Amino acid sequence: MNGAESLVRTLIAGGVNTCFANPGTSEMHFVAALDRVDGMRCVLVLFEGVATGAADGYARMAEKPAATLLHLGPGLANGLANMHNATKALTPMINIIGDHATYHRNYDAPLTSDIEGAAKPFSGWVRTSPNARRVAADGAAAIAAARTPPGQVATLILPADTAWNEADGPAEVPEVAKRVRVSSEAVKDAAKALRSGKPSMLLLAGPALRERGLDLAGRIRVKTGARIMAQTFVGRMERGAGCVPVERIPYPIDQARAALAGLAHIVLVGSRIPVAFFAYPDKPSLLAPEDTQFSILARTEEDSLEALERVADELGAQSVPSQAAKLAPPPPATGAINDASISRSLGALIPENAILVEEGISTGAGFFASTWNSQPHTWLQNMGGSIGLGMPMATGAAIACPNRPVLNVQADGSAMYAIQSLWTQAREGLNITTVLLNNRSYACLRHELANVGAQNVGRKALDMLDLSRPDIDFVGLAKTMGVPGARVTTMEEFNTEVARGLATPGPYLVEVLMV
Amino acid sequence: MNGAESLVRTLIAGGVNTCFANPGTSEMHFVAALDRVDGMRCVLVLFEGVATGAADGYARMAEKPAATLLHLGPGLANGLANMHNATKALTPMINIIGDHATYHRNYDAPLTSDIEGAAKPFSGWVRTSPNARRVAADGAAAIAAARTPPGQVATLILPADTAWNEADGPAEVPEVAKRVRVSSEAVKDAAKALRSGKPSMLLLAGPALRERGLDLAGRIRVKTGARIMAQTFVGRMERGAGCVPVERIPYPIDQARAALAGLAHIVLVGSRIPVAFFAYPDKPSLLAPEDTQFSILARTEEDSLEALERVADELGAQSVPSQAAKLAPPPPATGAINDASISRSLGALIPENAILVEEGISTGAGFFASTWNSQPHTWLQNMGGSIGLGMPMATGAAIACPNRPVLNVQADGSAMYAIQSLWTQAREGLNITTVLLNNRSYACLRHELANVGAQNVGRKALDMLDLSRPDIDFVGLAKTMGVPGARVTTMEEFNTEVARGLATPGPYLVEVLMV
Repeated sequence: MNGAESLVRTLIAGGVNTCFANPGTSEMHFVAALDRVDGMRCVLVLFEGVATGAADGYARMAEKPAATLLHLGPGLANGLANMHNATKALTPMINIIGDHATYHRNYDAPLTSDIEGAAKPFSGWVRTSPNARRVAADGAAAIAAARTPPGQVATLILPADTAWNEADGPAEVPEVAKRVRVSSEAVKDAAKALRSGKPSMLLLAGPALRERGLDLAGRIRVKTGARIMAQTFVGRMERGAGCVPVERIPYPIDQARAALAGLAHIVLVGSRIPVAFFAYPDKPSLLAPEDTQFSILARTEEDSLEALERVADELGAQSVPSQAAKLAPPPPATGAINDASISRSLGALIPENAILVEEGISTGAGFFASTWNSQPHTWLQNMGGSIGLGMPMATGAAIACPNRPVLNVQADGSAMYAIQSLWTQAREGLNITTVLLNNRSYACLRHELANVGAQNVGRKALDMLDLSRPDIDFVGLAKTMGVPGARVTTMEEFNTEVARGLATPGPYLVEVLMV
Repeated sequence: MNGAESLVRTLIAGGVNTCFANPGTSEMHFVAALDRVDGMRCVLVLFEGVATGAADGYARMAEKPAATLLHLGPGLANGLANMHNATKALTPMINIIGDHATYHRNYDAPLTSDIEGAAKPFSGWVRTSPNARRVAADGAAAIAAARTPPGQVATLILPADTAWNEADGPAEVPEVAKRVRVSSEAVKDAAKALRSGKPSMLLLAGPALRERGLDLAGRIRVKTGARIMAQTFVGRMERGAGCVPVERIPYPIDQARAALAGLAHIVLVGSRIPVAFFAYPDKPSLLAPEDTQFSILARTEEDSLEALERVADELGAQSVPSQAAKLAPPPPATGAINDASISRSLGALIPENAILVEEGISTGAGFFASTWNSQPHTWLQNMGGSIGLGMPMATGAAIACPNRPVLNVQADGSAMYAIQSLWTQAREGLNITTVLLNNRSYACLRHELANVGAQNVGRKALDMLDLSRPDIDFVGLAKTMGVPGARVTTMEEFNTEVARGLATPGPYLVEVLMV
């Protein structure tokens, strides 16, 4: 058994049985091993950002890491932007990067680069296997590193000779490390703040945004009058009927500051002190008032769910109602297409048990409010701000959950960073309906130009935000990669086509003309 | 004048008047400055790899750097693969990367990352501007760094407040550093080796592959009987009628070793000791025989052209004929499409003064031989092995040379890494004819599987090389981004459609079905 096969066997033994791959010469032994070993699903992608974004979506839904297989430094480089997003979402991920054979690296062949150096800014763990007999153990260490709470990106570099030389067989994979229980002081401090009578808030992130965490937070809200919010973007949140609705801190800085105004205390539940997404001239970086007190109930790596249970016990909140949302979806909108009508129809159309991957950018602000009373669903967002994650993430989520419909609400500008995702969606027959919101511009940047105080903008500047000239035909584009679809210009068509996409097995794309 | 405007003015004063941009919030002041300052052409791209690849193509043709404008760490990350290629091609390039405001970076907002760390593996020079008054001087230093022979990638990181705060105005840009004259010993050593009577070879790269360098090498060959070769891939080579034909070292390792067998002496002219592209089990990394002697006539940063003049003088070779190719293009091929017939028709169809951007991968091996006697043209290739450079490089070359037709011979798998290039080609009305060689596979990897000794491959492994399921419709794909085109299944159609594309202003795509 060579090193590559020992790694594939180790990955499978460690529960890592899905690999998003864009291999080259240096990865051929890993690829060849796929036929000698049962149990690894290898999904081909045409661009490496699809691989890392799909691995992110997969892990968020499967609650275990996927692997990626990428080709030397440049292959890794193309995957870094979505590794950045995964890092910010605390997603476990294992990247296998082929490198030149150890003895070949000194010769500075064309594809030689500093792979470890490139990986480090976007990985929590990086290792290069020194020889074939170490590959399996390094693979096991990568699994352990990726799964260490709260989850991180692990990058294992595999020189070609460590893949093709003889190895000893698979390595044992350590048990998954458990989340740490928070201290009694943390529980008491949180409870004290919440029952102080002063305006206080639970700020939720991570596992606290699943059903049980939301339920507990809802009960604490009823018991104490504290507010509950989530961070501006959520990695994964359970929503719709049966879940307690929790608003997010708004993205626009003035709205965000208004939302947090007057708070005496914020209890962090796996979340972080809220900061502005960008700096703006003459505006602060911190969103909460200067005199707001923070207490940390649970750090990101700690067991925030168990901590919430203990806070609820401490407060006597377990027995009060939780204010879960009822099933009462809005009727679908008719007439003209605009942000509000799309929000309403989404609320109407989200199917039971759907995964909603939202990268709506400038159009997405109203989606949350209209979907509280929809069918139960899971919401995934980009935590790292590197736009272009939506389509890869939808791809990975669909692979993790073949029996759940995936609805990817996707802005046009961000869609174009990893548009190759559509091909993999067609190849794998994934049940993804992409709602492509086409406003033919980087519309969010129009607001940002004003927000950063960039005055006197003229044609040349506005051209940099303009995605017309030429208009992109997204329905046609999807079709050329095997994904059927339709373009809609009224909400009646929107409702029909989104429903058709959701009812159709395999991928479908609905292009929504917003202009 | 703010920092951003001081930088734009400095770039223009330093001759950097083209910028390939995919900006975000942190770059809005740079974008806003474009309307207040005349002389900067800003070209919007939909994916950052298009920006860096286009900057590479631009600089190879314009012989001066372009700028790119990218959005924080992830925007840079998406541009790194083509920065790798530019680094290996010794291309001057200036990347402007917006970052969070200096005071905002401590808060670890979602888009925060170690930008310098990410840039360093793929940049020869990296700097972060500390304040607005330093931005212009740092821009001037970036230009100087990029243009320092032999040329390198310079990355300047611009925190948002250094862009929006008040600056003092543009900085003076130092004169471009000249290439260093080689020593007399280097000239004498080279001449001695070439007239030794033993089998010897000039190995050319860089400026030696332009008309004058080829002419000199041709005369030296006639005078001494020495061979002339170029490295396996050429950054830029002048070819066709009037140029001395120079073969490249073959890519397949056995052919490469055969080509260099028996050589007693290799004189490096801006080139490097030839090494295998990849390592293969039980094959050496070095391509020349173990007892071959190397002498360095010119290092990459030295003046190889002037050095060749002096060697020719020393050898008395200036007066002998140079063996330049005559104009005698082959007749276009008819009938079935295959590698040989495509090569022949390319030889027939290359128009005078064309720029041929070649990323043909598995199909491209025969293109050189059939085009020696074509119309005079310039040939550009990928020097770094990160496939996907072709379409961006064609985009940049067309912007640098608006009066020259660009012919981009492009394999299907590599096309999909930066397919968004087509949109920019349409937007800018660039005169690029893309010949898309669609064999519906990563065909080169079929050979590489065998070369690396990956035995027992089955369906799952072969699936990773297969780009059918679904077939990509490249003509349709181009059309959706504003580029017209046609699919061809015979050489007659090939000849008609490639000629049509070359005769049509603006971009055109000819999809060549190879299966």
